[in-house]
Amino acid sequence: MAFSEFRRLDEDSLIEYIKATPSLSSKIGNKFDDLTIKEVGDGNLNFVYIVAGSSGSFVLKQALPYIRCIGESWPMTKERAYFEAMALKEHGQLCPGHVPEVYHFDHTMALIGMRYLEPPHIILRKGLIAGIEYPLLAEHMSEYMARTLFSTSLLYRTTLEHKRADLGFETVIHLHLLNFVEMWSYAGLPEQVVFSDPYKVSQFNRCTSPFLDRDAEAVREDNTLKLEVAELKSKFCERAQALIHGDLHTGSVMVTLDSTQVIDPEFAFYGPMGFDIGAFLGNLILAYFAQDGHVDQGNDRKTYKKWILKTIEETWTLFHNKFTALWHQHKDGSGEAYLPEIYNNPELQQLIQEKYMKDLFHDTLGFGAAKMIRRIVGVAHVEDFESIEDSSKRAACERRALDLAKMLLKERRKFQAITEVISAIQLQS
Amino acid sequence: MAFSEFRRLDEDSLIEYIKATPSLSSKIGNKFDDLTIKEVGDGNLNFVYIVAGSSGSFVLKQALPYIRCIGESWPMTKERAYFEAMALKEHGQLCPGHVPEVYHFDHTMALIGMRYLEPPHIILRKGLIAGIEYPLLAEHMSEYMARTLFSTSLLYRTTLEHKRADLGFETVIHLHLLNFVEMWSYAGLPEQVVFSDPYKVSQFNRCTSPFLDRDAEAVREDNTLKLEVAELKSKFCERAQALIHGDLHTGSVMVTLDSTQVIDPEFAFYGPMGFDIGAFLGNLILAYFAQDGHVDQGNDRKTYKKWILKTIEETWTLFHNKFTALWHQHKDGSGEAYLPEIYNNPELQQLIQEKYMKDLFHDTLGFGAAKMIRRIVGVAHVEDFESIEDSSKRAACERRALDLAKMLLKERRKFQAITEVISAIQLQS
Repeated sequence: MAFSEFRRLDEDSLIEYIKATPSLSSKIGNKFDDLTIKEVGDGNLNFVYIVAGSSGSFVLKQALPYIRCIGESWPMTKERAYFEAMALKEHGQLCPGHVPEVYHFDHTMALIGMRYLEPPHIILRKGLIAGIEYPLLAEHMSEYMARTLFSTSLLYRTTLEHKRADLGFETVIHLHLLNFVEMWSYAGLPEQVVFSDPYKVSQFNRCTSPFLDRDAEAVREDNTLKLEVAELKSKFCERAQALIHGDLHTGSVMVTLDSTQVIDPEFAFYGPMGFDIGAFLGNLILAYFAQDGHVDQGNDRKTYKKWILKTIEETWTLFHNKFTALWHQHKDGSGEAYLPEIYNNPELQQLIQEKYMKDLFHDTLGFGAAKMIRRIVGVAHVEDFESIEDSSKRAACERRALDLAKMLLKERRKFQAITEVISAIQLQS
Repeated sequence: MAFSEFRRLDEDSLIEYIKATPSLSSKIGNKFDDLTIKEVGDGNLNFVYIVAGSSGSFVLKQALPYIRCIGESWPMTKERAYFEAMALKEHGQLCPGHVPEVYHFDHTMALIGMRYLEPPHIILRKGLIAGIEYPLLAEHMSEYMARTLFSTSLLYRTTLEHKRADLGFETVIHLHLLNFVEMWSYAGLPEQVVFSDPYKVSQFNRCTSPFLDRDAEAVREDNTLKLEVAELKSKFCERAQALIHGDLHTGSVMVTLDSTQVIDPEFAFYGPMGFDIGAFLGNLILAYFAQDGHVDQGNDRKTYKKWILKTIEETWTLFHNKFTALWHQHKDGSGEAYLPEIYNNPELQQLIQEKYMKDLFHDTLGFGAAKMIRRIVGVAHVEDFESIEDSSKRAACERRALDLAKMLLKERRKFQAITEVISAIQLQS
């Protein structure tokens, strides 16, 4: 059953589709009598079906040519399913332990078949709201980010031939094109919602009103902040540093106590590395500031807040160490950025690494802060805060996060170490 | 006569081709009996024919799938004819006074038909060697750079739709792809020859030996220089700031006393603006330092050196003024970088422009210096110096240029104004 053009699958046509697709039907042992199908997409862009039988399971994700929550008035290319599938495959090759396996991809149908992340996997954000500690989270996420970012950058790569061997020329071209499409085309996603909307009056913006009205206004009136966010926006639009996930918040990570899986790279493109690292750390900081809103009689969340801070610190530190270790390991390789014939003396190596990692740290803080700000005064908010019912309490949590983020965005170049960021977070809370 | 695959045209097949191509044959009034055809390509990548008759003329340029001077061992995609044609068209729309008109483009044949720049047009580099003053050069080149760079950047542009209206989607995609191809594929062009080869031992490098042997070695041993050039290389490979010419040296400009025409944008791609401005100014500085080698009894070149310095200063100053004027003119437009709803207060506007122009100035100095260095100790040298027969005299000129370039590359961020650069040049000479 090959469709010659896109159509949205429902539960009936889904079964027909699976029957006709060996790479999917084999995953459930070709048994259809005990199959359950459940639509679980809680995002805005896709339908997500869990298909499970007695002999196996998988997930089918279909992208829609518009954003689901806003409706067909906001057209979106279903090509992002293509980018998602390619990014899952590429990042999966680089870090198979933390990326779900892709079983099937249908370009015409914008359909991806991939591993079902079975219970007790939950979305990390929900775990953070529930106050669950994940002892391996920093280790796993630093591993994922170090491997995917290093290996798709010019520190590791040189020629098209290298890429061809891995994935085929088409993929590379298309992944890079996304950079372009992102740059000139998408109607406000994500460069507008992150870097523009929070800094202007927009019908889509909201904040915890009336408590944060004045704070939102202050964001729009802060010239220094706006100057800094413009620099980040340019970097986001123009700098093809590595194949980044593009939306690496805590809602794009599924976890158990011993498993960490990164999902949903549908905004993957060649962009600045700090946008990924910042997204993850920024969302951990949001989770931290939301904790006071989740205090109840049984749990003051103090221990949990310490764990989040420790995770933030360890994530950066481990990332730094793993990334520079990969660099050291491949310093005689074919990476185009620092050719061994030129840069292979220890003193110069150290100068270069320090400079590179310092710049990346500052990018991370800047992008992380921009992501935090947009989640408090922009269009899309986070469940960490939204689930705090008392709006004055919620506003108090959000304000602390917002004030920290504004400071980080403006002063990021003054920070030398992640421990200084941790101290700044503690000072604010 | 449509060819289904690429073949190199010779003078006979050329005439058949023209006869079968109305957009070309009409340019010579469909008269073939008095036609003269002359091959004039002095570059390494193409054949260039001047086709002239009593009723008109044009140039036919055919790209070859290898670099002509090195032979077929160095494969090059003939796709660059496509990029050249598209860039000529796009830049021609933006600045018709300084870009030759394209009459015909044949993708399969990698063939461009365009305006013949009739005598007394000569290559600017030859004019500079001959000591000819071009009173309008700074005015014209600043106009060309301001219009092409501003209008293809996010200061002016927003959506794909806008681009589609201009040129068609295909063009945009392909032009952007070049960025990618440049980044990962081209065997050493230009990121290697500019940013890598001069800083390592390479069989292709040469210098005026033995006089500059120690200088070339010093370049390879200068850690600070190598650190700085790595930053420029990353920016060159990763930053899609505007559709740049990509090879804007004084050999890519044809001039008369009142006409200035920019040719050969076959390396056009979305890259950093400073690479274009730096290429032009850096080559003017090389021309300046070469003057002492062209002194003869009739001309001490002192007046001419002053004119070159004045032209360098005016080119940047006029570029700055024209670029910021375009920005001011379009500040309420649809440019994505600084949305009017966010940035339209005079104080913030000024902050932004100062920062943007300062960064661009430093990029310009850095790229210009890198271009100078590679012309003295890298693979491809410039006729300005090569035409100085006495090699010790040539080396003395080159050393002064090299020393200035090294200083500029390392200290560029300390320069606040073009007048300071002029003073540094004078100090060195």
